Amino acid sequence: MSITMYDLAGADPDLRFSPYCWRIRFALAHKGMPVETIPWRFTEGDKIAFSGQGKVPVIQDAGTTVFDSWAIAEYLEEQAPMPSLFGGSVGRAHAAFINAWADSVMLGGIAPLIIRDLLDAVDPKDQAYFRSSREARFGRTLEQVQEDRADRVVAFRASLLPVRLVLRRQAWLGGAGPSYADHIVAGTLMWPHCVSRFQLLEDNDPIAAWFGRMLALYGGLGTSAKRV
Amino acid sequence: MSITMYDLAGADPDLRFSPYCWRIRFALAHKGMPVETIPWRFTEGDKIAFSGQGKVPVIQDAGTTVFDSWAIAEYLEEQAPMPSLFGGSVGRAHAAFINAWADSVMLGGIAPLIIRDLLDAVDPKDQAYFRSSREARFGRTLEQVQEDRADRVVAFRASLLPVRLVLRRQAWLGGAGPSYADHIVAGTLMWPHCVSRFQLLEDNDPIAAWFGRMLALYGGLGTSAKRV
Repeated sequence: MSITMYDLAGADPDLRFSPYCWRIRFALAHKGMPVETIPWRFTEGDKIAFSGQGKVPVIQDAGTTVFDSWAIAEYLEEQAPMPSLFGGSVGRAHAAFINAWADSVMLGGIAPLIIRDLLDAVDPKDQAYFRSSREARFGRTLEQVQEDRADRVVAFRASLLPVRLVLRRQAWLGGAGPSYADHIVAGTLMWPHCVSRFQLLEDNDPIAAWFGRMLALYGGLGTSAKRV
Repeated sequence: MSITMYDLAGADPDLRFSPYCWRIRFALAHKGMPVETIPWRFTEGDKIAFSGQGKVPVIQDAGTTVFDSWAIAEYLEEQAPMPSLFGGSVGRAHAAFINAWADSVMLGGIAPLIIRDLLDAVDPKDQAYFRSSREARFGRTLEQVQEDRADRVVAFRASLLPVRLVLRRQAWLGGAGPSYADHIVAGTLMWPHCVSRFQLLEDNDPIAAWFGRMLALYGGLGTSAKRV
């Protein structure tokens, strides 16, 4: 029996854009584990209430429910150790740092660059919730937040320097091959990639080349993702 | 025969403050490898010319010369695999990210907070070189750079969020025990710790508690370090 995953979807049910869900899509593909995704919207808390919380990804695997992308990655590694996501307990501990870095620096840096585009991508029934919750967080309208993105993106690109430095010396964040570290960073980049046409990375950035390789992995999982 | 390491020293030869040298001091201690350190000053390039470059740490081990802290860590792991610094190749690849993050975010964030204090710590014969090279880099006098540190430190503390998030869920960056990731971050913090009395971390920061544990490791290697 394959794993079922509740996956954030947009107005178009094929538009999937959660950075956390994408981390798990990559991780499942890495392990060759089939998954059936169920499109889910922000305002459908009732549909995942069985998990005891209100965010996706949530997976169900033969009667076991797991939520939170990090917990799911650990669960998958335990269920099917090879091919490994972490390369052992120290590799996993170090990946926790990369996960924390992506959650704070990357998500925080990307959000203001695409937040108004994102509003257009979310399901109509989610839009009022999305606008009010995000405007409360930023203290400004989504239009105001996004309007200076041409300037802001410069600092965002600079904040990715650690990734750039690593990719100058190794092909993948996981070293000789992709690991969950690659899934974390690429999964996070799938978020803007799917909902916005704003150019986040410069063409000659080694991160752009690596992201292109990530899109092509696993039978083109990322390449075939629906975009706005 | 024990390893010899050229180690950046101050006016007081017992004052050792290079963040890169400290990473290696911790790594050597982790492996239980004895080391004889040779105090070295910025203007003593001739003393390490045999290495083909001009920066410390440089180690000599039974006729082999290795420089660059990352390359030295890899060399040590190869020579004496256990106790491991990286926990395997994926753990090492992920540590490369933490190393790149520390080199860019941590070193770049700490420098302006302690740069004038550092001038007082360096050897008198290094001071003219130190002031002119660093003032050229910052485009301001060392006094000007450091004067707004009470404000700047707030952003620096915020930039450590990924470390803080990880230490909320695991005791060490390496997981159940310290790894080279701990040596990277703690080694970097030894730099301000040794040359300045400016308070970098708030008392209730989990990073401060972890750093205290790091100082106590390896027979109190960090605790017994000379400070200004």
